Amino acid sequence: MKPLKERLMTPGPTPVPERVLQAMASHTMYHRSPKFKEIFAETIERLKRLFKTERDTLILTSSGTGAMEAAVSNLFSPGDSAVVIVGGKFGQRWKELCETFGVNPVVIELEWGKSVNPEDVKKKIEENRNIKGVLVQICETSTGAFNDVKALGEITARYDNVILVADGITAFGVYDIPVDDWNIDVAITGSQKALMTPPGLAVISLSEKAKSRLSRKKWAYYFDLSKEIKNQAKGQTAYTPAVNLIVGLNEALKMIEEEGLENVAKRHEILAKSARAGIKALELELLPEHPANGVTAVKLPEHIDGQKFVSWIRDRLGIVIAGGQEHLKGKIFRLSHMGYIDIFDLLTQLEAVEFALTRMEMYPAYGKAVAAAMETYIELVHQSPIKYRGER
Amino acid sequence: MKPLKERLMTPGPTPVPERVLQAMASHTMYHRSPKFKEIFAETIERLKRLFKTERDTLILTSSGTGAMEAAVSNLFSPGDSAVVIVGGKFGQRWKELCETFGVNPVVIELEWGKSVNPEDVKKKIEENRNIKGVLVQICETSTGAFNDVKALGEITARYDNVILVADGITAFGVYDIPVDDWNIDVAITGSQKALMTPPGLAVISLSEKAKSRLSRKKWAYYFDLSKEIKNQAKGQTAYTPAVNLIVGLNEALKMIEEEGLENVAKRHEILAKSARAGIKALELELLPEHPANGVTAVKLPEHIDGQKFVSWIRDRLGIVIAGGQEHLKGKIFRLSHMGYIDIFDLLTQLEAVEFALTRMEMYPAYGKAVAAAMETYIELVHQSPIKYRGER
Repeated sequence: MKPLKERLMTPGPTPVPERVLQAMASHTMYHRSPKFKEIFAETIERLKRLFKTERDTLILTSSGTGAMEAAVSNLFSPGDSAVVIVGGKFGQRWKELCETFGVNPVVIELEWGKSVNPEDVKKKIEENRNIKGVLVQICETSTGAFNDVKALGEITARYDNVILVADGITAFGVYDIPVDDWNIDVAITGSQKALMTPPGLAVISLSEKAKSRLSRKKWAYYFDLSKEIKNQAKGQTAYTPAVNLIVGLNEALKMIEEEGLENVAKRHEILAKSARAGIKALELELLPEHPANGVTAVKLPEHIDGQKFVSWIRDRLGIVIAGGQEHLKGKIFRLSHMGYIDIFDLLTQLEAVEFALTRMEMYPAYGKAVAAAMETYIELVHQSPIKYRGER
Repeated sequence: MKPLKERLMTPGPTPVPERVLQAMASHTMYHRSPKFKEIFAETIERLKRLFKTERDTLILTSSGTGAMEAAVSNLFSPGDSAVVIVGGKFGQRWKELCETFGVNPVVIELEWGKSVNPEDVKKKIEENRNIKGVLVQICETSTGAFNDVKALGEITARYDNVILVADGITAFGVYDIPVDDWNIDVAITGSQKALMTPPGLAVISLSEKAKSRLSRKKWAYYFDLSKEIKNQAKGQTAYTPAVNLIVGLNEALKMIEEEGLENVAKRHEILAKSARAGIKALELELLPEHPANGVTAVKLPEHIDGQKFVSWIRDRLGIVIAGGQEHLKGKIFRLSHMGYIDIFDLLTQLEAVEFALTRMEMYPAYGKAVAAAMETYIELVHQSPIKYRGER
């Protein structure tokens, strides 16, 4: 039986709410029109509230990687060094970007799934006075590991020459992260994760410490941040932006504001804990030591071919979950509970996993992960300040 | 915590696939244009394949009740009698339509949830030579009971003066029903159930035996079937039809053809059996004696207020399931597995029921209904000729 429906459950792109799809379905506006400028400015204001920042916050028409490149190419000079945390595929991307733009990556190599120890970062900075920045993922999406970016900000704030560049592509909208308070000099996110919008937009905010580097010669044209700061202050962009996506992002951010960022973060936390409870009930092991709240990466027993596992779930059940990347290919699967995902979407993913494990004669009974996740969910919902207010 | 999403799980309207929504979102066509006539004719051909009929099959711009009225007002004369099976809200509607158009309803009153015994129908026809038809629901949506319309067709076929009028609004697209072979003189359905299209269209097919009555004086204008037969033969309608809905219905019927009607029916059967297994695991009782495959009506224990039960599930969990109607209000809930619904949608409904029962301290453990439904589902999928063809 072919699956009737396909359900997108990957950690990016994530499902887009109908409200956002409908907003994007309006006729394309001229990007220099007063109407669009107004929407653009409104979207920027919402992003600043999301980041809890007063700083320049820019929208780039690119994937999140574009903003990562912009940070490296605009804020570092060839010959600079930077501490790069490599604990997964996206840490590797920082390293590759450094190499491309002549920045020496001082790599802290982590076993994939591990989180960085902030003390190790401090040591690297102390050891090497040429270090101009720390490049990190708040959540390393390939492993589901969370890095303590607040602690890193406390360290980098002490060095006038060191900026903290945090890829929060799967963190903003999952957590309530105050960019300014946490001393994140460069905060980055993308449209297609917890921001519930299709791919194609990146966001980057810059502290004064970061901006002071912009006057230098830089290897950037499309991603020239000086140009964007000047233009975006006037509700414009240097180049034609993805108008419809911005209209969609504005609507998605409105939804986040209606729910309340605190509630959004609480929801992600509750779903993440419910996911972990479900996985535990299956006697499977989480990959990350400190799991993040947007994605749950799970180790598969060695004799299971994880690529087949994930493709069977996709082809036979229509549930599109992610497998592992690079050397984790075939070894893990990843549940997503980021963005427009609720408890029933999570339970659906656990059911798919149960169907697949049972098929491989790995698993004695249906509903076990589901039951554990449901129990945890209700417990946490009742504990939470935003609990049900029923008759009882 | 307010629900993040709302999921439509009622036995009509049912969820509409994106393909259908997108087809409907095209610009409205002029209903006398060659392009629309072509689509209209194509849709009629698809409906005939769905009904397995060679007979005149008409689209009416109305809810299903419009087609029910058309059958009574066009095919019966004041003073005629008709056997009316009343085992729920839609049987009552037949009776009310008869009364409106001066037809004497010879009612077979069933306890709600029971199915008609065909022998009782035969007896009524034998007793009263003025009986000109039998009005029945193939599935009585308010109770989830299935009536053996094939057996009824075998009976009515023997009487030249008696036509079988079957409301298949929640049956076509759920079952594979050969209208001509089963001697259903008047087959009726609606767009918003298993046909996966929004409400607004009704379908009616007419046997020669039924059509022979059309020359009589009838109390019908908007629903004048003679006029529609004449128009629709030319790819037109007597009045402006719901153009966009017809475009959507055409797309939905295309989807059914791609899946194959036999597979569609098998899917509904498997989901229905899985639903019943889930309910049994909760130690709850089904309302109908002979449950239909599109909707599962479940009795609630007496001390539970079913209206609150259903509204709690809707308001707190965002799962919109149906309760009972008329005197069953507050006493039952109804799961829907009709149309664009798959196993995960069904499991979501069972999870919602488990959350609600647990909240009422009725239920000892999460995942019980889910597990039973999953087990039944996989068992039946493997038994079925359309089973998974995996590596194993």
